[in-house]
Amino acid sequence: MVQAVGVQQVSGDVYAEVQSFYARQMRRVDALDVEGFAATFTADGVVVHADGHRQAGREEMVAGMRARLPRYEDVAVRHWFGHLLVEVDGADEDTVRVSYYTLVSEVDREGRVSFQPTFTVEDVLVRVEGRLLTRSRVIRRDVPGGPGVSAAS
Amino acid sequence: MVQAVGVQQVSGDVYAEVQSFYARQMRRVDALDVEGFAATFTADGVVVHADGHRQAGREEMVAGMRARLPRYEDVAVRHWFGHLLVEVDGADEDTVRVSYYTLVSEVDREGRVSFQPTFTVEDVLVRVEGRLLTRSRVIRRDVPGGPGVSAAS
Amino acid sequence: MVQAVGVQQVSGDVYAEVQSFYARQMRRVDALDVEGFAATFTADGVVVHADGHRQAGREEMVAGMRARLPRYEDVAVRHWFGHLLVEVDGADEDTVRVSYYTLVSEVDREGRVSFQPTFTVEDVLVRVEGRLLTRSRVIRRDVPGGPGVSAAS
Repeated sequence: MVQAVGVQQVSGDVYAEVQSFYARQMRRVDALDVEGFAATFTADGVVVHADGHRQAGREEMVAGMRARLPRYEDVAVRHWFGHLLVEVDGADEDTVRVSYYTLVSEVDREGRVSFQPTFTVEDVLVRVEGRLLTRSRVIRRDVPGGPGVSAAS
Repeated sequence: MVQAVGVQQVSGDVYAEVQSFYARQMRRVDALDVEGFAATFTADGVVVHADGHRQAGREEMVAGMRARLPRYEDVAVRHWFGHLLVEVDGADEDTVRVSYYTLVSEVDREGRVSFQPTFTVEDVLVRVEGRLLTRSRVIRRDVPGGPGVSAAS
Repeated sequence: MVQAVGVQQVSGDVYAEVQSFYARQMRRVDALDVEGFAATFTADGVVVHADGHRQAGREEMVAGMRARLPRYEDVAVRHWFGHLLVEVDGADEDTVRVSYYTLVSEVDREGRVSFQPTFTVEDVLVRVEGRLLTRSRVIRRDVPGGPGVSAAS
């Protein structure tokens, strides 16, 4: 996932495009806009959650998010990303591999802040009609001595 | 505020310029450099705080920050930004609309870390003599089910 | 360290290159890959820690990190960066000065998140055979009213 020696640097334009894609995608999930979030995935998009549960297609994603909505009734959740690594396949400029850290904050009505455990995510994005969509996402919980991050490069 | 379909992608150069602007502006506010911070706004700059209070012009900003300084006597505050969305008006390249998440950390002398509630901010930046300044800022507290973030795009 | 008036804006390409460099360097330190982390520094690389302790050369870095490893046996540590300021010396495009905020999270096996105090870091990076390495790093703990951040610009 991490860039290997010889892999060309991501351009500033693609880096900004990828960051902007996530900025929009996370606004939707943080606004609990279930359909809007699912629409940022390809129709056959796949998400593998940290517990191993696999969601395939927007319908399963929407159902899965709906089931979790009550959990967010009393908090405002925000997803924070860190250390994006963006790799464009030289042979296919419309496929972008990205890995990043995530930290999820929750704020209650009194303004108290708490945090969910950190995760490391690996995505495959595809550019369709000029716009990025997530084709696959693998989410790994960060555990002590765990494989959450790769030391490769 | 969020990019609509059809809005062109922000370039890598402008994305880096905007990130660098905030890196400098936040160093000033986190250093409690009241005048230096106010100088990153246009002379007629406006800030609308989460409680609805409106500050117009650098003088009001300086007065408002001075009044809050005692609150920061015993902590080192740091503003963290997330998920910047940068939109350049096609008709006016010197006006840049930006929205972003903010998380504010406070560290006391013993090194204990605490966090203020999260906020979502919408800025209008203008480029004056080649340098960005903030012309307007609207700060919204993130509340459960609240309008803190837009699901648009 | 902070860009002075007249210093040219960092390009989007260099901004993305620097962010990608840190994304790889921090994956290594967060994976406790001591040798891999040291390899992201020049052979004569220097780190000045917040307590004033100075490590010169990869051997000292490796020894220092090994000594701290037991501290991380039961937590997954993640380094979060904020507000990178990137300055390229006009006379030497292969030397890049960077300052940034850091927040270090620790997650235990039960998923409880805690944070180390925040720091502000100033690096000098050099591009060797097309790849960035850290030549020097100065780490400052953020303290109330402290010099952790510069208000200059």
